[in-house]
Amino acid sequence: MTRKGILFIISGPSGVGKGTIKDVVLRKITDIKLSISATTRSPRSGETSGTDYFFVNEDTFQQLINNDELLEWANVYGNMYGTPRQFVEESMTRGQDVMLEIDIQGALQIKQRKPDGVFIFICPPSIEELSLRLATRATDTPESITLRLAACKWEMAQVKHYDYVVLNRELQTAVDTVCAIITAERCKVKNINLERDMIDSTFNPGPDGSSG
Amino acid sequence: MTRKGILFIISGPSGVGKGTIKDVVLRKITDIKLSISATTRSPRSGETSGTDYFFVNEDTFQQLINNDELLEWANVYGNMYGTPRQFVEESMTRGQDVMLEIDIQGALQIKQRKPDGVFIFICPPSIEELSLRLATRATDTPESITLRLAACKWEMAQVKHYDYVVLNRELQTAVDTVCAIITAERCKVKNINLERDMIDSTFNPGPDGSSG
Repeated sequence: MTRKGILFIISGPSGVGKGTIKDVVLRKITDIKLSISATTRSPRSGETSGTDYFFVNEDTFQQLINNDELLEWANVYGNMYGTPRQFVEESMTRGQDVMLEIDIQGALQIKQRKPDGVFIFICPPSIEELSLRLATRATDTPESITLRLAACKWEMAQVKHYDYVVLNRELQTAVDTVCAIITAERCKVKNINLERDMIDSTFNPGPDGSSG
Repeated sequence: MTRKGILFIISGPSGVGKGTIKDVVLRKITDIKLSISATTRSPRSGETSGTDYFFVNEDTFQQLINNDELLEWANVYGNMYGTPRQFVEESMTRGQDVMLEIDIQGALQIKQRKPDGVFIFICPPSIEELSLRLATRATDTPESITLRLAACKWEMAQVKHYDYVVLNRELQTAVDTVCAIITAERCKVKNINLERDMIDSTFNPGPDGSSG
């Protein structure tokens, strides 16, 4: 069955583990393209431009905003992050699914422009556990941890704007649940080109036996 | 996380294999209760009342209709089938998920009274394959096969009223897909009691580590 490209948004509070979940899901489901964000923050150790982010300076970022080339953008703790619009929209037009991993501010902006996206909120088992995870993540300073926990209460309340909530108590269970959501969304009648596929009542399998 | 009970409706054309899919899914996901239909048709070999159906006579069935005790009912090839309302509604009120396996006429009636149900259309790979399946199913007469294929075109067009469509080309893939849909629906924000669970920002795991 042919269908439209779906935009999956993996989001949640800082430190909840959404990056790890996204990485493992994309290794299991290889026909989803990851949207790469533009950012003005400095690369962390091991990060490369074009793979992890497009690392740009502030002038270049402002130009992207001015030219309406960003689907969303936000200032997070002094750094700018944004989602290049063209990649997402061109992929979906071709029937290609796209995944975005993004903080909550960004997800809420995306929702206004892409209300048909599938919004998945990755949820910590508790505020206490999130605090512990942030404290043991070497890349965060004590100051940034304090700031992030203060933002967390507001962030948790935003779950009501999402479609799904996935509890990240145990990584494999969280990954399996996100994979199930992707499988389910791909079967949604509203995402399938019914006129082309159903009216002649015959379905053409792809070369691997899956629906094409 | 606590949540409301969900009503899953497994439906599709006659002979598509929805009964087998339902059986295997319920063996894998054991905390869904199967709704048992009432019918006036005679038991097939091996069927028992209260397990496969409630086998009742026509007077009793009419009384169920008159007392508004059926969530839906239909005359299918001269036999009456109906879904007792009380079992479904009481289970869902307790947070218990319920599954119904039902023909398309029945599903469309259910949808009018339970629009929040999750409607899953099991789809044959092609009309030709459905014809072959019906012809090799020993319990159907040639006359009933002819009748059923005539109905099939109308049935296929009803997919637009469903939430999901699952292609039954290979049983295990179809079963896994239905299980994924169930997992996904259980994570839907609209099905979770957010006020109770999210506002205090702490989640209490069940004794097995799953969300309670």
